[in-house]
Amino acid sequence: MTAQRYDTISFLSDYGTRDEFVGIVKCVIADLAPHAKVIDLTHDVPPFDVRAGSLALARCISYVPTGIVLAVVDPGVGTARRAVAVSVGAGRGVLIGPDNGLLSMGTALAGGAESAVVLNNPEYQLATPGATFAGRDIFAPAAAHLCNGVPLSALGDPIDPNLLLPGVVPLSRKEGDGLVAEITWVDRYGNCQLNVGPDEVATFGTTLSITFSTATGERVNRSASVVPNFSAIGGGIGLVIDSFGMLAICVDRGSAAESLSIGVGDAVTLSAHSDPTGVSTTVQLRRNPAHSE
Amino acid sequence: MTAQRYDTISFLSDYGTRDEFVGIVKCVIADLAPHAKVIDLTHDVPPFDVRAGSLALARCISYVPTGIVLAVVDPGVGTARRAVAVSVGAGRGVLIGPDNGLLSMGTALAGGAESAVVLNNPEYQLATPGATFAGRDIFAPAAAHLCNGVPLSALGDPIDPNLLLPGVVPLSRKEGDGLVAEITWVDRYGNCQLNVGPDEVATFGTTLSITFSTATGERVNRSASVVPNFSAIGGGIGLVIDSFGMLAICVDRGSAAESLSIGVGDAVTLSAHSDPTGVSTTVQLRRNPAHSE
Amino acid sequence: MTAQRYDTISFLSDYGTRDEFVGIVKCVIADLAPHAKVIDLTHDVPPFDVRAGSLALARCISYVPTGIVLAVVDPGVGTARRAVAVSVGAGRGVLIGPDNGLLSMGTALAGGAESAVVLNNPEYQLATPGATFAGRDIFAPAAAHLCNGVPLSALGDPIDPNLLLPGVVPLSRKEGDGLVAEITWVDRYGNCQLNVGPDEVATFGTTLSITFSTATGERVNRSASVVPNFSAIGGGIGLVIDSFGMLAICVDRGSAAESLSIGVGDAVTLSAHSDPTGVSTTVQLRRNPAHSE
Repeated sequence: MTAQRYDTISFLSDYGTRDEFVGIVKCVIADLAPHAKVIDLTHDVPPFDVRAGSLALARCISYVPTGIVLAVVDPGVGTARRAVAVSVGAGRGVLIGPDNGLLSMGTALAGGAESAVVLNNPEYQLATPGATFAGRDIFAPAAAHLCNGVPLSALGDPIDPNLLLPGVVPLSRKEGDGLVAEITWVDRYGNCQLNVGPDEVATFGTTLSITFSTATGERVNRSASVVPNFSAIGGGIGLVIDSFGMLAICVDRGSAAESLSIGVGDAVTLSAHSDPTGVSTTVQLRRNPAHSE
Repeated sequence: MTAQRYDTISFLSDYGTRDEFVGIVKCVIADLAPHAKVIDLTHDVPPFDVRAGSLALARCISYVPTGIVLAVVDPGVGTARRAVAVSVGAGRGVLIGPDNGLLSMGTALAGGAESAVVLNNPEYQLATPGATFAGRDIFAPAAAHLCNGVPLSALGDPIDPNLLLPGVVPLSRKEGDGLVAEITWVDRYGNCQLNVGPDEVATFGTTLSITFSTATGERVNRSASVVPNFSAIGGGIGLVIDSFGMLAICVDRGSAAESLSIGVGDAVTLSAHSDPTGVSTTVQLRRNPAHSE
Repeated sequence: MTAQRYDTISFLSDYGTRDEFVGIVKCVIADLAPHAKVIDLTHDVPPFDVRAGSLALARCISYVPTGIVLAVVDPGVGTARRAVAVSVGAGRGVLIGPDNGLLSMGTALAGGAESAVVLNNPEYQLATPGATFAGRDIFAPAAAHLCNGVPLSALGDPIDPNLLLPGVVPLSRKEGDGLVAEITWVDRYGNCQLNVGPDEVATFGTTLSITFSTATGERVNRSASVVPNFSAIGGGIGLVIDSFGMLAICVDRGSAAESLSIGVGDAVTLSAHSDPTGVSTTVQLRRNPAHSE
């Protein structure tokens, strides 16, 4: 049996780019596996935020090329939390990272774990002056050695992939006539992604009522139409079917998060709008300077 | 006729690096055209700011290697605005992006458009769960397929390159004895580039009078000498001939934008200094702690 | 004698990523030496901060692959300060940058300079519209030409490597019963690295007394145990043996810099703790909400 080799390492972390953490990880990879191409998915996952990292990985995973996914959001570095490598897609992909839930959604969306090892073979690790940089000392070498054809089983002891720590997937829930959703992601533009797809609100019509509490505690009710792009919002706010097929609360050429004082983790209730035509409300919103950008 | 192939994609956007947008675009490219090298020009164009993006592209274009330029600042994504690819330099380069003026200065500086197509052939696009991420679904695949030797004409219908949306190039203008310039760019260090080269102010002498309004509305007059580097400014402010051959308002080892409370889009009037030696003023500035960093 | 060629350029600067400076440097390299892989160490060294840049380079240098190190923090660009290339490790590496102390610690850690040249041969530079972007016009071309096999001696006149500007290495010092250290680096997570390794404080025991002044001038005394990772801190603060083998003042899943109002350059005195068991103090800290994150 020929060893599987890989050419690409897709890399996500909460390292930021202010320091040289990402650079050093790439140095280690370039040294061990010069042929491997590293693709930065993002390194600006908020520090220590395993859930945000797992959601970002979930959004990326169906676009990631065949190869290695290296994911590091690892507040428990250096403790008993396990460093793992998880094989998916009949060996076409291997996810590497801490076993703290970070890899769970990505693994599931890639078809589920087929086998897994704990990265405890010191032969494939760097000797380290301190235990706090597993990205450099454990994860990057594992990724590089897999690229070179080292089999997964050589990196450490096999573990039951069913016992990997699951992530917490935020689910929407029905409450009365409404659907209580959660803001799972606010992107650079201020668009607020919900954990709800357009099919789930189809019975509410095309103009919905949105209810939420702002950062200052005020309870706010707004109407918004489901639209295919930002320009179709016109004034006010809209529910755009975003590039991942989810509904996102958006304003055209402006930040919905700032305009509405909402953010990641906030609950938003969607329901049918009392005025199903929605026309008068939309016109009113356009005239209100407080709603324009 | 052999198909032209390309090896390099120079990539500029307003995606930022906080999210995984840039990473996903690179995944799509790596999947379709693994041999292509992607060079990040910058992804921190201010959100939705087509003009800032077109100026950044203009500053880059003469250094970009033969190949593809992928530029995405696209507030009208998903609407009737066209996605285009524009051939320049006898096929040595192709600029890809929205037809909203973003590509105009870059195209002109690369010698002008020779042919162009609208990217409307779905065979060379990704099927998409939403219409808001043309970088991933339309632009990146077009760039990758061109790298693989797919001819420009296969990507969509030809359009008249003379009908591409022009950009708004900010021009300086004479007013009385002065030249009214505009701050077109404030870089990381706080240097404020003007849309004026040193030849245009040669008749004013080597020490000029600079007049502008601060963020608080105060009208300010300062003197500044035209100098070749930051250290030559000494105290106070200087007009440095910057790395693109334009004049920039600078302070040595400090931020002119912060010191003077000025920013992109502000008007600045340059004129001959009433005291042509400029010596006493410069000495005075050095002694004024408000002007030092 | 066959010319030495290189494949990798490890790149550190204070250019930031907001502008296209880094992108243009990579364009120049890609144009001249398409085979060269560029690894970004970091570009977020604080503007003009030569010392911070030299410390970041020192932390990277033992992980950098064989090849070129390109380092640019260069407030004196365009003046008489010299642009240099320094050979280390029997030619396995060449450091390129301004001769302002930036390269000194990296050079020393790489075994010391063996030969050096000043980059004054215009044949291996770009013609330039302004003198303020040596990264693009002088340093990047030098790096690329070395990758292509141009010998170091062709890039300019030889200089005595012993006369390169030394950097200022911050050393800790004994004072009374204590050791006065300095915070040399605050990373993204708020961990505060000291210029002290664990061996230097071994005689103080495993729980130490830490004394420092906060940003508001308040004099503060805290206890902290030397621990191998962040989770072992528990509540309060700890002295983690960080990934470079130095002691760092840390809190678990939070920012020590913010919690304690301390930052780069601050002095911290370490001494033996008056209560050597340290137990009661640690328990007290855990109960004090002001100390928790």
